Amino acid sequence: MTDDHRYHVDGDLVPASEASVSVDDRGFRYGDAAFETLRAYGGEIFEWERHADRLEATCEALSLEHGLSADDLRSRIDETLAANDLADAYVRLSVTRGVQPGKLTPQPEVDPTVVVYVKPLPRGGLEGESVWEGRATVESVETRAVPDAAVPAGAKTHNYLNGILARTELSAAADEALLFDTDGAVAEGATSNLFFVRDGRLRTPSTDCDVLPGITRGIVLETAHAAGIEVETGRYDLEDVRTADEAFLTNRTWELRPIERIDDAAIGTGPVTERLSRAYDERVEDACYRD
Amino acid sequence: MTDDHRYHVDGDLVPASEASVSVDDRGFRYGDAAFETLRAYGGEIFEWERHADRLEATCEALSLEHGLSADDLRSRIDETLAANDLADAYVRLSVTRGVQPGKLTPQPEVDPTVVVYVKPLPRGGLEGESVWEGRATVESVETRAVPDAAVPAGAKTHNYLNGILARTELSAAADEALLFDTDGAVAEGATSNLFFVRDGRLRTPSTDCDVLPGITRGIVLETAHAAGIEVETGRYDLEDVRTADEAFLTNRTWELRPIERIDDAAIGTGPVTERLSRAYDERVEDACYRD
Repeated sequence: MTDDHRYHVDGDLVPASEASVSVDDRGFRYGDAAFETLRAYGGEIFEWERHADRLEATCEALSLEHGLSADDLRSRIDETLAANDLADAYVRLSVTRGVQPGKLTPQPEVDPTVVVYVKPLPRGGLEGESVWEGRATVESVETRAVPDAAVPAGAKTHNYLNGILARTELSAAADEALLFDTDGAVAEGATSNLFFVRDGRLRTPSTDCDVLPGITRGIVLETAHAAGIEVETGRYDLEDVRTADEAFLTNRTWELRPIERIDDAAIGTGPVTERLSRAYDERVEDACYRD
Repeated sequence: MTDDHRYHVDGDLVPASEASVSVDDRGFRYGDAAFETLRAYGGEIFEWERHADRLEATCEALSLEHGLSADDLRSRIDETLAANDLADAYVRLSVTRGVQPGKLTPQPEVDPTVVVYVKPLPRGGLEGESVWEGRATVESVETRAVPDAAVPAGAKTHNYLNGILARTELSAAADEALLFDTDGAVAEGATSNLFFVRDGRLRTPSTDCDVLPGITRGIVLETAHAAGIEVETGRYDLEDVRTADEAFLTNRTWELRPIERIDDAAIGTGPVTERLSRAYDERVEDACYRD
């Protein structure tokens, strides 16, 4: 980051090094905030409408009526990208419940704090390169995913300790933690969704397993359907995944990242993963790089 | 709050209205922070050593090695009270994992952010008054307590959405939400522990029920033992509590607060609650107001 790197905080572009929020902000006090991780490819936010919709779903789950339109939020992102002269970028958009009188119970009147962070990423699409250097090494962890009954699994919030605790269990050799739900079914990675392939069928834990339904996950499922690949969402145990023919993780920045191993079980990539990865790149290329 | 109200942030006393943390601070991004709620009575922090110990336990659960001594933290609190000329006060001490490179996985090298908030409270002890205006009205909620397997129940962190979601379920008439664990046993309030009395025996959910073991809870249990009151910790269902002879909530600021009703069941105070409440006030008086 250079000294003139800018973030967008509460309506203003400010130097990243000075970008701050009040210690009374509920986003800081309680992690009382919604966020989205997005990618800009060639200056375009990929699948913006899905992000805007999921942000709204998170805010609804938190009873956080911020009163800002999707267009308003989008324009803050665009301004931040422009101010940093970035076309290919990681973008993080956070909306907090702002400062309220010092009670835990939220007040309906919200003066939200909106923060946009950006940082450069490589080009995506067909001529792009991956942000990851190698295939993922995954380790199963003891930390269980927070059940939907405690905090809605579909809400993407600043309460991220569950994923942090999962990551602290990893050996130095591993990139991602594989969490199980409290019933022992495979759920998700700390910052990713899991897919695996057996007998040519693409499988991923269903949203009944306390999974955050990632936007990349949704696109992969759609792409697989469109390509005539058999798809199954369900409840799986670790052995199902360890013995898969192929496996990969998805998230916004990684896109599709093949899994080299889970614990001591080698897995790797294969024809289904490669086909879906190519289709994803094509979709990015069509949406963002072709005028 | 007056304009010259001060907080202590990252080593400095600053005007509360300007007190802020970086948007890159993990305390803001992820709620990756430990905190304690304390009370100062007559200029003394009540039971400081227990707070220092629990803060360390939280940091250990988060693998957050902040490198600060308890004396250092205590001196920041004392400086903040002095700067605001406060002897009887609410104090909140937060320690975050600070700013680290933009990865979820924590780095072992921590430059923590320490924040001390204070605000005036009434005198406590024998001549004090309660911070609450009336007995608590409690409603049972659907939101379940986060299980210990997902985030350690004994850790007091900035991931507080679970309690916020519980509170958003309340009707306007209620003060506190009663949460159950995922197995349906009574756990705790959003910001309080629950006690009830039946047949002269004091009962409170055991720490097996995903309960944060509050310091006030610990003192009440000790006081009851010392007073020869029969004590039981266990697993209870809602009916056990609704049909109690007495019930009360505890936390640092409320101390002991009798429960007027839970849902539609009237409960109220009684001889055990009053005896324990008096004993608590005596303990505060002895520790903080008698030189």
